Amino acid sequence: MAARLDARGLDAREVVRRLRRPRGFLSREVRAAVRQVVEEVRERGDEALLEYGERFDGVRPDPLRVPREEIERARAALPGELAEAFRTAIENVRRFHERELDRSWELERGGARLGQRVRPLRRAGIYVPGGHGAYPSTLVMTAVPAQVAGVEELCVCTPPGPDGRANPRLLAVAGLLGIGEVYAAGGAQAVAAMAFGTESVPRVDKIVGPGNDYVTAAKLEVFGEVGVDAPQGPSELVVVADGSARPERVALDLMAQAEHLSGATSVLLTPSGALASGVEPLLSGRPSEHITLVLVRDLEQALEISNLYAPEHVHLNCEGAGAALERVEAAGLVAVGDLSPVALSDYAAGPSHALPTGGTARWASALGTHDFLTRINHMRFSREALRELGPHVERLARMEGFENHAASVAARREKEEG
Amino acid sequence: MAARLDARGLDAREVVRRLRRPRGFLSREVRAAVRQVVEEVRERGDEALLEYGERFDGVRPDPLRVPREEIERARAALPGELAEAFRTAIENVRRFHERELDRSWELERGGARLGQRVRPLRRAGIYVPGGHGAYPSTLVMTAVPAQVAGVEELCVCTPPGPDGRANPRLLAVAGLLGIGEVYAAGGAQAVAAMAFGTESVPRVDKIVGPGNDYVTAAKLEVFGEVGVDAPQGPSELVVVADGSARPERVALDLMAQAEHLSGATSVLLTPSGALASGVEPLLSGRPSEHITLVLVRDLEQALEISNLYAPEHVHLNCEGAGAALERVEAAGLVAVGDLSPVALSDYAAGPSHALPTGGTARWASALGTHDFLTRINHMRFSREALRELGPHVERLARMEGFENHAASVAARREKEEG
Repeated sequence: MAARLDARGLDAREVVRRLRRPRGFLSREVRAAVRQVVEEVRERGDEALLEYGERFDGVRPDPLRVPREEIERARAALPGELAEAFRTAIENVRRFHERELDRSWELERGGARLGQRVRPLRRAGIYVPGGHGAYPSTLVMTAVPAQVAGVEELCVCTPPGPDGRANPRLLAVAGLLGIGEVYAAGGAQAVAAMAFGTESVPRVDKIVGPGNDYVTAAKLEVFGEVGVDAPQGPSELVVVADGSARPERVALDLMAQAEHLSGATSVLLTPSGALASGVEPLLSGRPSEHITLVLVRDLEQALEISNLYAPEHVHLNCEGAGAALERVEAAGLVAVGDLSPVALSDYAAGPSHALPTGGTARWASALGTHDFLTRINHMRFSREALRELGPHVERLARMEGFENHAASVAARREKEEG
Repeated sequence: MAARLDARGLDAREVVRRLRRPRGFLSREVRAAVRQVVEEVRERGDEALLEYGERFDGVRPDPLRVPREEIERARAALPGELAEAFRTAIENVRRFHERELDRSWELERGGARLGQRVRPLRRAGIYVPGGHGAYPSTLVMTAVPAQVAGVEELCVCTPPGPDGRANPRLLAVAGLLGIGEVYAAGGAQAVAAMAFGTESVPRVDKIVGPGNDYVTAAKLEVFGEVGVDAPQGPSELVVVADGSARPERVALDLMAQAEHLSGATSVLLTPSGALASGVEPLLSGRPSEHITLVLVRDLEQALEISNLYAPEHVHLNCEGAGAALERVEAAGLVAVGDLSPVALSDYAAGPSHALPTGGTARWASALGTHDFLTRINHMRFSREALRELGPHVERLARMEGFENHAASVAARREKEEG
């Protein structure tokens, strides 16, 4: 059964406190368990990777790396309609991320040329969750931004099914994307393998992609050794709706997010008692336990709560949704208007579905090309520009006690002929 | 005394292995010690913050937060020439970061409007190291990108001197930048205070800035709870130089980086035995112990080594330096040509001196406006666009077993009048 909350008399902070969601990947227990796994894989490589795989997934894949022919077979076996759907998704995700791509630039000021060289990472690792289900869409949503950024080496880790093999639909997508390096390895141990490298898995520069609490905690654990993207925990949706929204559609949107189960959260914020009452009887089964219907004073309060909560997804299903978008300050993705159900972006609209959860949207963003690039700053001074700036730098360096810093500049200023 | 290495017969990987630098912030001992400090501050707030401060800095600042009048006094007491030098630095750093700033955008495809809203973080925390010295320049290099990004709330933590007070030059810069929230608190305990909040220090959304191994490890420890920038460990410089470089200048550049001591690394990569022999006698004192002179076959090999090493700074002091820049694939900052000593960017050229070290330049970049922004993706579908994409999404959702996802889309397609 869905929970109900009357927030009309409550402060936004109090509402967010009551909506408190699970962030298990930050718990001491999960972090400690994962630390152990990471250490073992770091020290013992494949041996530990396979041992933990057997313990957690019940199988010992052999070979660990999926043969290229298996990927090719899976791609060839993909039914035509699914292949077309995936191709459409890939194209939309590609177009969206081409638009957001940062480019190298240069500027000149008083004889100094300054700039930024934007470069792709050399090698990135993508984690695609599995186990209960298979999420080939996640490979589209993580690999395409990497490819748009220009990353040449991509490797994918995904837990094997009971037969010890990676999911064939996932392999089919790897085939469509031209990715030939897939390992049937999951969990914290797979993250550790990508971070430190093992006999079978060459180390990567950065690890991205969603996973369960252990996978996410493992990414936090190896951060610093390699790069990682923002933590992606259980799914979240906040629907901001007024009396103009249709109860049956809002109910489906809430149920859609909640059917992820395992910690998922769907919240309706509405000033319309009629909408809440219309939605409630349409919620059923286990997903409904993940849904909270919140009665608010007005859309103003709804947006205040949403901004503090900083959810993965916001759906603005209200009059003036376009204007409301301008007031969203923290969210991974915003769906605007009734005709934009979040499910569109989960699969094919363009933005990645790899999004910050658990309130991390306060400081983190959707996965994108930015995750697969570095910016190398550079400078080139002319004699004139050096003469202009040099004395300031020498003064500041001496104040901080760095005589050689000052001298390295002065040496260039003094020798006019050099 | 500087070390020498003949790398002409060695593989680049082997050279990098021999140049192995300290990355103490990743050591098990430092991480475990820091975990304890972070936990204590999380649980006991100011009490633990002050206790650890007393233990590590030997003082118990009272008040913890620097009074605004003290900042104002420090600003007023800044000698004119230093004020002018800082203003020049601030202006250059501002101009550089205005250029790299990402902007919101929107695109339309077949009736779907997709875009990205780029927003500043609400509140960021800046760590400025202290203790042995004071680094007011670090406040310029971290706060200005945040201000350009539009962050409204900035707080600064810096360890107090023996008198229990924050360094007056640092406070003066805070005054110049209009920053009124400074705490005389340092170390891992200050990082924890900003991450979780204490009675005196309101929590922040993200923590940036360099520090010692404990500070850096603390940032790794709190990552996930809040955002953090890339790890910034001991300073590093790789000089790529040929026979055209002047030994006395190269020696000063190497000494300048090495005078940071505490783990700093300066490396000369040169095919010119004459240059190496000219530089060697000019290196002296404790900094020289941090310097390695490496003889390489040619500039080709030098760049290969540099790219694998992925240093904080590269100085290209050779013929064709501009062309060589195009081949640098991993570095925080590249100084191009003899007239561009790295010290210029340490203080005032424009790019931030908060740079990735320890090889993290493989996946991390200089601090910049990107660190202080989030990108909120959004989408708005028309009926036509929904009709086009809907069937693909429904197919993919059903394949992954998410019936409500499919239904939430189908409900909008079926009701033509809605």
